[in-house]
Amino acid sequence: MFVKHGINSGFSSLASSAVLRRQHFLIRSLGGYTDNTHQTRMEGVKCFSGGASLEADAEKVLRAITPSLDPTKYKGQAGKSPQAAGLVVVSSCFFLRIEVEVIGGFKNDEYGKIAVIGGCREYTGAPYFAAISALKLGADLSHVFCTEGAAMVIKSYSPELIVHPIFKESYSISDVDDEGRRHISKKILAEFGKWMERFDCLVIGPGLGRDPFLLECVSQIMKHARQSNVPMVVDADGLFLVTNSVDLVSGYPLAVLTPNVNEYKRLVQKVLGCDINDQDASGEVLSLSKRIGGVTILRKGKSDLISDGEIVQSVGIYGSPRRCGGQGDILSGSVAVFLSWAREHILASDGKPIISSKNPTVLGCIAASALLRKAASRAFEHKKRSTLTTDIIECLGQSLEDICPAS
Amino acid sequence: MFVKHGINSGFSSLASSAVLRRQHFLIRSLGGYTDNTHQTRMEGVKCFSGGASLEADAEKVLRAITPSLDPTKYKGQAGKSPQAAGLVVVSSCFFLRIEVEVIGGFKNDEYGKIAVIGGCREYTGAPYFAAISALKLGADLSHVFCTEGAAMVIKSYSPELIVHPIFKESYSISDVDDEGRRHISKKILAEFGKWMERFDCLVIGPGLGRDPFLLECVSQIMKHARQSNVPMVVDADGLFLVTNSVDLVSGYPLAVLTPNVNEYKRLVQKVLGCDINDQDASGEVLSLSKRIGGVTILRKGKSDLISDGEIVQSVGIYGSPRRCGGQGDILSGSVAVFLSWAREHILASDGKPIISSKNPTVLGCIAASALLRKAASRAFEHKKRSTLTTDIIECLGQSLEDICPAS
Repeated sequence: MFVKHGINSGFSSLASSAVLRRQHFLIRSLGGYTDNTHQTRMEGVKCFSGGASLEADAEKVLRAITPSLDPTKYKGQAGKSPQAAGLVVVSSCFFLRIEVEVIGGFKNDEYGKIAVIGGCREYTGAPYFAAISALKLGADLSHVFCTEGAAMVIKSYSPELIVHPIFKESYSISDVDDEGRRHISKKILAEFGKWMERFDCLVIGPGLGRDPFLLECVSQIMKHARQSNVPMVVDADGLFLVTNSVDLVSGYPLAVLTPNVNEYKRLVQKVLGCDINDQDASGEVLSLSKRIGGVTILRKGKSDLISDGEIVQSVGIYGSPRRCGGQGDILSGSVAVFLSWAREHILASDGKPIISSKNPTVLGCIAASALLRKAASRAFEHKKRSTLTTDIIECLGQSLEDICPAS
Repeated sequence: MFVKHGINSGFSSLASSAVLRRQHFLIRSLGGYTDNTHQTRMEGVKCFSGGASLEADAEKVLRAITPSLDPTKYKGQAGKSPQAAGLVVVSSCFFLRIEVEVIGGFKNDEYGKIAVIGGCREYTGAPYFAAISALKLGADLSHVFCTEGAAMVIKSYSPELIVHPIFKESYSISDVDDEGRRHISKKILAEFGKWMERFDCLVIGPGLGRDPFLLECVSQIMKHARQSNVPMVVDADGLFLVTNSVDLVSGYPLAVLTPNVNEYKRLVQKVLGCDINDQDASGEVLSLSKRIGGVTILRKGKSDLISDGEIVQSVGIYGSPRRCGGQGDILSGSVAVFLSWAREHILASDGKPIISSKNPTVLGCIAASALLRKAASRAFEHKKRSTLTTDIIECLGQSLEDICPAS
């Protein structure tokens, strides 16, 4: 589509496209995120103060951002409000992409679409969990971009997903020279580029693995997503990548990192240059986020801590004592959906959202964290020690329904 | 079977077969569809008039065309009535194939068979949804013809389907020269040709993709299906193909196109040379159908609009506000089944069908649209925002049972 004449990467032509020129113009003319003060951005949400974090009113957030279902919408429009369709003035750079869509007129039929980038020779469950969770919450379409070897297995888990076998790992191109690898890499980026603009959010990392060639391709994709103002949720091996190359997300307000204890520890060591300090967990996550230029961080733990460098929120609703692997994948897929809905909610409310926060990444994290906990609790009630990730996913719908009924 | 001595394509021998000569004779002697007036064709169905479309009595259509289950029938006869077996005089070219089957005597054991042509490297869910929906409604056998890469995955979704890995995509024959490609193409067409006559309806397009080599093969199959008077439901990437080559279906009364909003827009732009006009949606779909020579169009939307160039019917039964991807695949598979049953119903009633419409494609569309909506509504009642295509498919049977109990 727009990837035709790339020189340094498959995406370079985008940088000179009319779409991007409009985005740059809008960033300059609207001033962007940093013009909004802490007070105006999070007025209605309890804020971090004095070294302690405050529990978010997660149910209120969930009720506010979860869209009502509208029979006049068609596939791909889940969460797209009639108001948003005509909106041409926005109040922060969080919304530039949506705005450009409206101005550019090339995306008004494509909402409710999530893409998971992950799945390799070793891991196939994680990207499936993330992608299917997005669908179960209400996304219209959920894609997975993975290696050729993983695709067939992920496809077989569910016909509901669209799975693209575009990536290669080093072992499968061991006899290819550097020039050949550059060619393969360029082809992969071009292939992904055909889809990029269609997605409301990317989830980068579930089951991605750590193959150097694959990670280099994903780095390029992240750079492009950022150029295009596509939100990104980064988890698991995506965090390994980001910890080693913080610049990939640094200063990008539409990026969310969702580290667990160990991933968080490595991130703190790399970025803050110290060991984690549980005595001031809130202050630390705030500092970490600030140091990475306002990227939103969801630190998973007994209570999840969420910060965008200006505030800290926590979600401590009781979930489940069961620690089956895969819950992080549910969370990352859910953040992607709720983040997209939060952007829509704020846009649709024309500057007067029910929740007065204007940072959709924070709202998305609060909602996803709370819902996962509720679903885990519900699943544990029935399955006890046998509770698996699949059981929790099956409880996502009813848990959301309990808080904000669909009709 | 009939593909033995093809010169230009795998199907060319059919053109000179006794079967086809009979068909041509019958078309000439019976006058075909255009001799039937609007009044005689759609007497019992409310008709389009004065720029407004009228809601079809969809439940009446469903009850009329859904065959009663007869313990004396055997596999492949779902929907075949005892009367039809002996029928030798028909009143319109819609039924030529059935007539020829009876005269030729080579097909009287093969009813209730649907084939879906789709499934490629990227898409495997869509053809599965279409094919399994046909089975869940009551088709006896449901086949999928797809690429080699997709077949294994589609097979893994369900042991109920018969999946033929016959197609190839350009990437898998990148080192083959033109002569080699022609050979492969001919082989594919011959392989499909062995099955063609056994099917009551083809569904062309779900998950087909847009690979040029694959689309060229499918074009050839469509030409052959038309020569053989096999009905075709064209959806998704099949509509991409048809929009670029309208001649493939133009003037073929047994073709049904099922475009969504965007596919319809492209079709209107190509065929009518203008943008869509929602102020006169009924008039537009009528004109579009007329311009394509009476091909039946089911325009999906809040209300589905159905036209064969002579009348417009609408189905506006409330379905579900959930817009998960895959509902279009259920619809295309369902149209295939109901269209086949409608032909049977009209044949069996010996010119006096309960529904006096004599256009089975329109009746098939009305029935499929209504049933999908009822199933979607039922699924949404239980699953709310988590409703996925699989959930809707699970409700097809009970929804049909509510309207016309099997026993």
